[in-house]
Order: sequence, then C-alpha cells, then structure tokens
Amino acid sequence: MALVVAKFGGSSVADKDRVMNVAKIVTDTYKSGNDVIVVVSAQGDTTDDLIEKAKEINKDASKREMDMLLTAGEQMSISLLAMAIEKLGFPVVSLLGWQAGFITSSAYSSARIKKIKTDRLKKEIDKNNIVVVAGFQGLNRFDDLTTLGRGGSDTSAVAIAAAMGADICKIYTDVDGVYTADPRKVKNAKKLEAVSYDEMLELASLGAQVLNNRSVEMAKKYSIELEVLSSLEDKPGTIIKEKVEMEKCFISGVAKDDSVARISIIGVPDKPGLAFKLFSKLAKNNIDVDIILQSIGRDDTKDISFTVTKENGKKAVEIVSGYLDVIGGQKIKYDDKVSKVSIVGAGMQSHPGIAAKMFEALYDKQINIQMISTSEIKISVLIDNKDADCAVASIHDKFFSES
Amino acid sequence: MALVVAKFGGSSVADKDRVMNVAKIVTDTYKSGNDVIVVVSAQGDTTDDLIEKAKEINKDASKREMDMLLTAGEQMSISLLAMAIEKLGFPVVSLLGWQAGFITSSAYSSARIKKIKTDRLKKEIDKNNIVVVAGFQGLNRFDDLTTLGRGGSDTSAVAIAAAMGADICKIYTDVDGVYTADPRKVKNAKKLEAVSYDEMLELASLGAQVLNNRSVEMAKKYSIELEVLSSLEDKPGTIIKEKVEMEKCFISGVAKDDSVARISIIGVPDKPGLAFKLFSKLAKNNIDVDIILQSIGRDDTKDISFTVTKENGKKAVEIVSGYLDVIGGQKIKYDDKVSKVSIVGAGMQSHPGIAAKMFEALYDKQINIQMISTSEIKISVLIDNKDADCAVASIHDKFFSES
Repeated sequence: MALVVAKFGGSSVADKDRVMNVAKIVTDTYKSGNDVIVVVSAQGDTTDDLIEKAKEINKDASKREMDMLLTAGEQMSISLLAMAIEKLGFPVVSLLGWQAGFITSSAYSSARIKKIKTDRLKKEIDKNNIVVVAGFQGLNRFDDLTTLGRGGSDTSAVAIAAAMGADICKIYTDVDGVYTADPRKVKNAKKLEAVSYDEMLELASLGAQVLNNRSVEMAKKYSIELEVLSSLEDKPGTIIKEKVEMEKCFISGVAKDDSVARISIIGVPDKPGLAFKLFSKLAKNNIDVDIILQSIGRDDTKDISFTVTKENGKKAVEIVSGYLDVIGGQKIKYDDKVSKVSIVGAGMQSHPGIAAKMFEALYDKQINIQMISTSEIKISVLIDNKDADCAVASIHDKFFSES
Repeated sequence: MALVVAKFGGSSVADKDRVMNVAKIVTDTYKSGNDVIVVVSAQGDTTDDLIEKAKEINKDASKREMDMLLTAGEQMSISLLAMAIEKLGFPVVSLLGWQAGFITSSAYSSARIKKIKTDRLKKEIDKNNIVVVAGFQGLNRFDDLTTLGRGGSDTSAVAIAAAMGADICKIYTDVDGVYTADPRKVKNAKKLEAVSYDEMLELASLGAQVLNNRSVEMAKKYSIELEVLSSLEDKPGTIIKEKVEMEKCFISGVAKDDSVARISIIGVPDKPGLAFKLFSKLAKNNIDVDIILQSIGRDDTKDISFTVTKENGKKAVEIVSGYLDVIGGQKIKYDDKVSKVSIVGAGMQSHPGIAAKMFEALYDKQINIQMISTSEIKISVLIDNKDADCAVASIHDKFFSES
C-alpha cells in the first residue's frame, strides 16, 4: 500500500463533469489499495473572477483581504470534489489549508510554507478517508489566511508529499507530460518518459510552463518523485526524479522564450568596476538580468549587452540612460524582437559536442546568433524573433530525428 | 464611545454599489466615535447558487461538505466589504467565524453557538480596527466549519453583541422596521417605534419574517437592545427591548400566516389518553402541531382538530390515517385553504377586551372563525384563506385607526 499525493489544477475541475472525472481518477487510485491525498486548485476561472470583483470595489485592496477573498476559491472546489467522491460511495473529507496544517510566512499573496503540522492529515488517513486538501493556501502566525502565489498548488502538493513521506506526487494537468519541444509547434516533439529535477527546472524557466519552479525545487530538496500527467487521458506521463537514465540524444528538450529583450551599451570605457556598478543598480531596482555578454575592447572601449524580460525592458533602459554618464557609455540600443532558444540536458556535461551540434542546426537554416550563454546543463542562444520557431524545429530535428 | 454591532443581510451587500453603501454606513458610525463590529451574510443569491452547484454534483452531499462549501459565501462578502472600507480610508480587518472565536455544536447545517472566544475581536477593537465578521458560521470541536442554519447571521450578530457587551445591535435589512401589519397589504400599517422581545417573537413566528427567532430569543436572554432598520434609507427603525412603553392601542401588530393546514379527526371515542397518544406519535415524526382544538363530546364521541404547516400536511395525514384504528376515529378531514391571523401585544394581558374587539372586526366582515388559540400576548384565529387579507385589514383598522 502506497501513499499517493495527487494534484489537480483549476482546468481539471472547471465544471461538474470534470469534477466527476477527477473523483473517478481519485477513487480508482484508492480502490487499487493506495492511501490518497488530493490537492486541488480553485475551479477554472474562479480566481480571476474574484480578482475582477475585488478590483471593481478597490483597485488597491490590501493583500491580506485579497488572500481572504481568493482562498474561498479552493474552499468551494474541495467541498465540491468531496461531494463527487461521496457520490461514488467512498469515504472522504475535505480540508482547508490551515486544517491540513499549512503554516506559512506572513507575506500575504506570496507566502512561503514554513511547515506542515501533519496530525490532522494522519488522523484522516488512519480513518481510511480520501483527503481533499485546498492548495495554494495556509495560515500565518497571526492566524490569518495566506496564499502561496500563482502556481502555489503544485508547491502545496509537493510539500504534503514531503511531510507525509508519500511514495509519489502526481501532478495532473491539461498536458500529458513533458515534451522535447512544444508539441503545438514542433510536430516531431516526443514525450519524455523521465527527466531530472535540474533539467525540469531549466525547462520551466525557459517557458515550458508545465510545473511551478518552486514545486520542482522542493521535490528535489526532499527527493519526491513527481509525475506530470493528463487528467483527461488515462496514460503514463513524465516522471521527474533525481537520476534519469541517459538517452542517446543526451538532451531532454528544446525550449523557446519570447519574453526577453536585449539592451546594449556601446562604447563603455574599458575600466574595472563598471559592470559591477551597472548590474548592482539594476538589481536594486528589482530587475533580473539573464544573459550578459561583454565584448572584447575595441580601442579603449567595450560594449556590454544583457537581456531582461520584455516587461522590465522600458524601466531598465530608463535606469541605464540615467546612469550612462557615470559609466561613460556612448549610446544605448534596445531590441525586444528577440527570442531565447535553449537546449537542456544533463547529458551535455560529459559530451562537449552538444553545443557544436546546436550551432550547426542554426547554421543549416542560416540563423544568426546574437548572444550565447551556457550552464552545466543548458545552452541558450539569443536570436531574431522571426527565426525562433524555425530554430527550435531545426535543433529538435538535429537531436531527436537523427537519434 | 459606544460599541455598535451592525448586521447586514445578503441583499444589503448584493452588488458592488450596495457593498460601497454598507461601507459608508459602517464608516459613518465609526466616525461618530463608536467602535464597530459588522456581521455580514453572503452576497445576494450566493448561498442559493452554491446549493444549486452542489446538487448538480451530488443531491445527497454530506452536511459537513455542504457547510464547507457554503461558508465560502461569507468569506467572499467579508473580504469585499473590508476592501470597500479600506477604499474609504478606514482601518479594517475581516474575520471568518472561527477567527472571531465562534465555537459551535458539531451539528453541521444547524449548529448552535456554544461560546465566543473574544480575544481576537478585542485585540482588533483595541487596534481601532473596524471588524467585519462572517455571519452564519463557526467551528466545532473537530476543528471543522459549521453553519448555524438559515437566518443564522442575525444570531451571530446578537451573540457577538452579548459576548462583547455591545451597547446596541443594529440589524440592517431591506425593510425599515417592524410594522403593525404587512405594509404591502395593509395601507394604514404603521411602523412601530419599539416592540418588546416577546411581542417580536410572536410576530416572527407568525410570518412577519423580519428577524430570525433564535436571535430575538438570544437578545432577550442577554438583554441586548436590537434595532431593525433599512440599509437603503437613513432613518430610525424599530427598537426591540425588554419593556416597551404601552401605546393606546395595546397591541403591536396584526400578522397573517398562510403556511398552515388543518386536520380534523371526526368521531373519536371520548376516552382519556387518546390525544396524548396521537400527538406523541406526530412529535416522534418531527411534526410540530400548532393550534389544537377538541370539541366537547357529542354522544360518546368527540372531534379533534389541529394545525400543522402545509409542508407537513400530507405526512401528518398519512400518520394519522395509519393510526385511526388505534384511536378509534371515524374519518379524517384535511383542509389547506386556511390562514392563521393573529394579533400580538403585551398590552392584552391587562386588557380583557382585546379578544372581543378582534372578533368584532371579523364579525363586521362576516368572516367565520374556525379555530381560536390564545396565549398571554397573542390571539390567533384560523379562518378561510380567501378571507385572510380582508381580516387583517379589518382587525388592523379596528385597533389602529380608532386609536
């Protein structure tokens, strides 16, 4: 007998038919002899609808009251799912975040889980109940309701799996697993049987938004095996765990991120400390910088280029402009018609030919590389936006069709 | 500086404009130098909508899960009202039933308040916060959410007023007070300045559904002064308290109840114990009997008549039919085209002419009285349904127009 934690997102419980479908999946798992804890998000658009309602009354409502409002969303979905499970004739109990023991930091709207007091969860499991828990929410030291921020239900599920020593944490969603590339764009994209935590983290940060990153980090920390799978089709998904058997192609996936913009500062004097000053200034303004490239000095000046999210683009340009005198740059270039294309794979650490193969795929299509960034398990290139889909397809073919 | 508890029903917070209106009333009360605790119901049709949603999934959902679902309704209304109060620039905090310290019995869907732990309420008042509390809900000894049943928010408000020693408990609603008769039916109906707890209890049980009876009983028990007033018009309502200055007319109001049915058992042998057996049998089946009339025996048989609610009518007839052999009755008559018309007033205790005056009003209109029932502060008659409105008007004129 295993303990299974199963998490269902808002779209999986969007209407009564989907709620009944989830009840079926959950009770089938229970019938197979498992203890089951289910973590659920608010139904469909409930959270967005509640935010809209709040804005109509007060655009600047306090985060405390927003959390009070939003946590009602999961309260409704857990009770409805519990009723559906009752309807199928199984013993069930729904628990709010605080009833399930979620103690969080006091930061409303973006609280962190501090611990889970598992007494109640254990008691309900001992009574052979299927336990339905409200994701995304907890209680802070003031006895007030908090939320974990968007995607927090994934984190709730992994945290319960860790606290209860679950055998597996299944994340049911509207895709059926993690793919080697976006299956809507790349027709040969293949579903991965398994992927490592680190690869998944890199893939998630690249826009393959299957799983919330905090949940993967937590799963890695506590060695919780995850499975991403579809709530609408009964077939295996993708397992996420520490060590994954290497496949021939050495990489796990190709991802594209269109949300980036590039800023270049031309003609910066070649003196030490300038880069440090510039990036400290941006960090102080809460602007995360991703790829950084510094050209080798021509004459006694150099060029510094870096990427930020498009969202932060304008603000970053303003800050750099106001700082241009200090660092002594000549002019600023801004380009938001760029994309970051990346390959991720633990295999590349021991196979130096991977980068070359990626660049070859781009050369095949005559695509110009603007910037390159590498980490132990990732290689990213910045290219023109219009070439991005073609680049992903070409790289994907190079690695996956030849193998 | 006084402590005011103000309660607003679902229709008073039905949409964003009404929520802002309530915020205005509450902050005006606060600005006048009062501490304010606000008790709110779920918005408009929220509760009914949630019940509908539950039924679509499971018609026989457990009461525990129904309470889990329904309590989300007030959670949304308290946070939205708190946001509206924030918008007006006042310090505010919303509290769920359990946060406000409501400890209830464990009977889901009809829990009784056992006590209120006032620590949190006191702390928030000490911080000069306006406190917005979710009505209708509490927590039982299993740490599970409970509801107090329909109309429970009135009871929540009175219980807080009692526990906190409030100076007054204002019940805001969509009528502007308690009237001498239904103002939609009787054009000379007058708003009462004040009425006693006992009179209010009788009026409420007669279908003048202004206030939930449990809340009036509790107000009487703890001597909490109530005021029923409109949330849409800024004018005084009706005060409900222990002793009310007697007005000339001696009665407080005339009320009509159409929800009754009469059952008569004809030809019951005149032996002791039969009435006891019959009404025990009905009580065991949870059927409340209201007026009972037993005719003086003709020959050696008698007739027993009683009223039940229309809702219970069919079931009561079935029970009595199956029991007819035991009590030896000859036949059963059932009539649900009847109404109960009553006058209520503490004044009648010392003025024996009141009943005669009521009967005279009926005689004036040639209305036949089927049954009569009297208590210390109430006289009820059962009459034909079609005469009821005319009877109320005639009685009302007799007492209030002549005075």
